[in-house]
Amino acid sequence: MGLPKRVSILEVGPREGFQMQETPIPTEDKVSFINALNKTGVSSIEVTSFVSPKWVPQMADAEDVLAKIERVQDVTYRAAYLNMRGLERALANDVTVVGSLVLSASNTFSMKNMNKTIDDMVETLPGWIEAYQKAGVPVKQMGLMAAFGCNYEGYIYLDHLINMIDRVSRLAEQHGEKIQKVRLADTMGWANPEQMKRTIFAIKNKWPELEIGLHLHDTRGLGLTNAYAALQEGVYEFDAAVAGLGGCPFAAVKGAPGNICTEDLAFMCEEQGIETGIDLDALLECAKLAQQIVGDELPGHLIKGGRLYSKRPHTWMKQQGSKH
Amino acid sequence: MGLPKRVSILEVGPREGFQMQETPIPTEDKVSFINALNKTGVSSIEVTSFVSPKWVPQMADAEDVLAKIERVQDVTYRAAYLNMRGLERALANDVTVVGSLVLSASNTFSMKNMNKTIDDMVETLPGWIEAYQKAGVPVKQMGLMAAFGCNYEGYIYLDHLINMIDRVSRLAEQHGEKIQKVRLADTMGWANPEQMKRTIFAIKNKWPELEIGLHLHDTRGLGLTNAYAALQEGVYEFDAAVAGLGGCPFAAVKGAPGNICTEDLAFMCEEQGIETGIDLDALLECAKLAQQIVGDELPGHLIKGGRLYSKRPHTWMKQQGSKH
Repeated sequence: MGLPKRVSILEVGPREGFQMQETPIPTEDKVSFINALNKTGVSSIEVTSFVSPKWVPQMADAEDVLAKIERVQDVTYRAAYLNMRGLERALANDVTVVGSLVLSASNTFSMKNMNKTIDDMVETLPGWIEAYQKAGVPVKQMGLMAAFGCNYEGYIYLDHLINMIDRVSRLAEQHGEKIQKVRLADTMGWANPEQMKRTIFAIKNKWPELEIGLHLHDTRGLGLTNAYAALQEGVYEFDAAVAGLGGCPFAAVKGAPGNICTEDLAFMCEEQGIETGIDLDALLECAKLAQQIVGDELPGHLIKGGRLYSKRPHTWMKQQGSKH
Repeated sequence: MGLPKRVSILEVGPREGFQMQETPIPTEDKVSFINALNKTGVSSIEVTSFVSPKWVPQMADAEDVLAKIERVQDVTYRAAYLNMRGLERALANDVTVVGSLVLSASNTFSMKNMNKTIDDMVETLPGWIEAYQKAGVPVKQMGLMAAFGCNYEGYIYLDHLINMIDRVSRLAEQHGEKIQKVRLADTMGWANPEQMKRTIFAIKNKWPELEIGLHLHDTRGLGLTNAYAALQEGVYEFDAAVAGLGGCPFAAVKGAPGNICTEDLAFMCEEQGIETGIDLDALLECAKLAQQIVGDELPGHLIKGGRLYSKRPHTWMKQQGSKH
């Protein structure tokens, strides 16, 4: 497959990025940051997370943030949640709720993260479908965490991943829903580019109509390379965090990056002629703002390397009639 | 093309990495670092640079370093030089001198770096060939700096690059030499992966026998992705610096990475089944040593993210007869 014509980026910095910060971030800083993101052209922003303030104090102001941010047309505002209580809060607030069935591809990670085996988690899915249906939210999406590998179990085999997609798709169908998109998360930064290509190829081969979204981590430096491998297989939906905000709780040492960096991803796409809809200068301003807010240098590269400026036509392929 | 079966890595940390450091690095630290590199399986080490101590005081101990390091079979020890005086010093020392003709693909960069236009530089090449021939060194290689783009000129067009390779190859032939390898340096971090693929494809299409080596910089975060794109086109020779030692003097701000990181590159290769001949644990020890020597955190990712350890067979493709 060729590279896609355009990509769609879900900015997760305000949620996953800030959530990883140990020092509390004032609500007004979150609001200014999201208001700045509004002007960058990202299509979706994950604004906050409806989790227990006891476990994640950083997200205790979820409702407050949502009430205070400016809303811009063409931007979808999203929020994360892990349980029914979280879903209820999401439904009670002004965010777009996507009916998604989320599991971990690693049984051990599922136990550690949700205190439930994969099988136990699958048993909860009819309850989720029912809750979505009751709220009038169609269930068209599924998500798999640790889809490529897991610090506790090692590599996730491709046939296991395919079986899980199959299992959840069938279950959704039995409840009158049709899964149209699978979101794969490389939660602990295990993926490599060839694995990425084969995984996407295998999924598209079995379900040609199924859309694929990726949530990649740059823990071991392969984040953008994995994104490029996915682009080569036609994937056009990515999560990313401005400046590489956040971090990885599963890395060997503190300070390893988490989410891939939004402006680095957008830069890579644009350099290859893939539309992002993003204003890179505005995004770089947001990256600087993110560094100010967390008071630390962040892992993004473009913020250090700087944009490419050229008096020539903005392409490395020679233009008709141009001279050099 | 498929990925190559194995890659060969030239470690440039002791030269390009240390050269970028402002504070002087004691000779004994350089020597211990190179001795540690000896045990990692890298095939070549660029140990030092024969440049004027007036301009580059960091490299004033070139002869001393070369005299003091341990030598290991199967490792090639190299040194950089920019002029005839440097070549003379290289020939007088125990380093492998590769007869290489080096130009910049950007005329403005050539002026700024060497105070000569490309045309003026081409006129110096017969003198270089003569000097190499006099020393009994065959001239089989050429190098192009700023081969993909330049902060002063913008993108380097592919046809210009092809013309330069053609021009130097012909000139070498006129002097009884045959260029067998071209080394392309992305000196200012301009390359993108599709450009990389098309560049390599175009060169191989015109000169199927010509080997290609790459010197990539990670200034804007695309270093490893460009390496992956090159691997896809069959390139198997890369320069890299342990821990991402060094930096980029052409970046927007201080602290932008320079050379791609050796252990990140080796990790990416091994995860995809490409042999590197490298002991990753030993290389990670060198990365830690590099951080100690420069007294600062370095840009490498694997040193923060940590290696992947798995009780399962070390592959993401399911093994015959394995269970999960």
